[in-house]
Amino acid sequence: MRRSEQKQVEPDLGILAARTLFGFQRELFTRLAAQGHPRLRPRHGAVLAYLDADGSRATDLAAQSGQHKQVIGTLVDELVALGYVERQPDPADRRAKLVVPTEKGLDHMARSDAIVAEVESAHAAAVGEQAYAAFKQVFAQVAERQAGGGVSPDEAT
Amino acid sequence: MRRSEQKQVEPDLGILAARTLFGFQRELFTRLAAQGHPRLRPRHGAVLAYLDADGSRATDLAAQSGQHKQVIGTLVDELVALGYVERQPDPADRRAKLVVPTEKGLDHMARSDAIVAEVESAHAAAVGEQAYAAFKQVFAQVAERQAGGGVSPDEAT
Repeated sequence: MRRSEQKQVEPDLGILAARTLFGFQRELFTRLAAQGHPRLRPRHGAVLAYLDADGSRATDLAAQSGQHKQVIGTLVDELVALGYVERQPDPADRRAKLVVPTEKGLDHMARSDAIVAEVESAHAAAVGEQAYAAFKQVFAQVAERQAGGGVSPDEAT
Repeated sequence: MRRSEQKQVEPDLGILAARTLFGFQRELFTRLAAQGHPRLRPRHGAVLAYLDADGSRATDLAAQSGQHKQVIGTLVDELVALGYVERQPDPADRRAKLVVPTEKGLDHMARSDAIVAEVESAHAAAVGEQAYAAFKQVFAQVAERQAGGGVSPDEAT
């Protein structure tokens, strides 16, 4: 069997993760665009996916998304310009700033979480609830193992 | 529970796919760099992951990777400059060109395939062979469903 056919018949972990991630982002951001959020891009997910309603520190967003703090800073700048978040002083630490969602940001977060839940319910219905739950459980272990590589994310661009 | 904690405890499909893909790429390209291929970047995987030893058409590489033909063209230009592939006339169609790996390209492909197999064996040993096989089977279905979104990949950048 040719290599290209082998990869189609038995796709490796990287191929499956790439297809799933890019398809998932496409579906999520297409649906968000139709619901009044046309200017967001998948890269903004590094901030918006982890943002808390009462605000988050940039360092926490960096740790949660696996992105460098500099990258998060740039994304926050973009999201401020687009009207999704504001930088506010952190009441717990006068020297620190919090990234706080605006009304528009909160609307996005609620819609995004609902769409993600719908997408996953549809997968679970298609492959079977039990099989999907088992899949997610192993996926969490694999992702944890794979994320603990010890090399900084900016080397992987 | 705060939204950020919820995402850590029960990461959604997109979060798991992103962690797995970026961790996988980091591991693969770090190990390839140590084995004499330091100048390749994960984006080159769209060509190199699917390339056949006797050459592939750019249109096939585009279809297999889900990237636009223009993107593949740019990546092939970069890989030609790095000495990994050459463009040769397609013996089956005088108007078409084949992307053919050089010796260096073939060395990369063999090493890459071996590393990927090792990475997956390690995951399987950690989570259990049967559980990993079941995970890959459901993952293939989810990736297939997710890839069939019907929106072009360049909208998802």
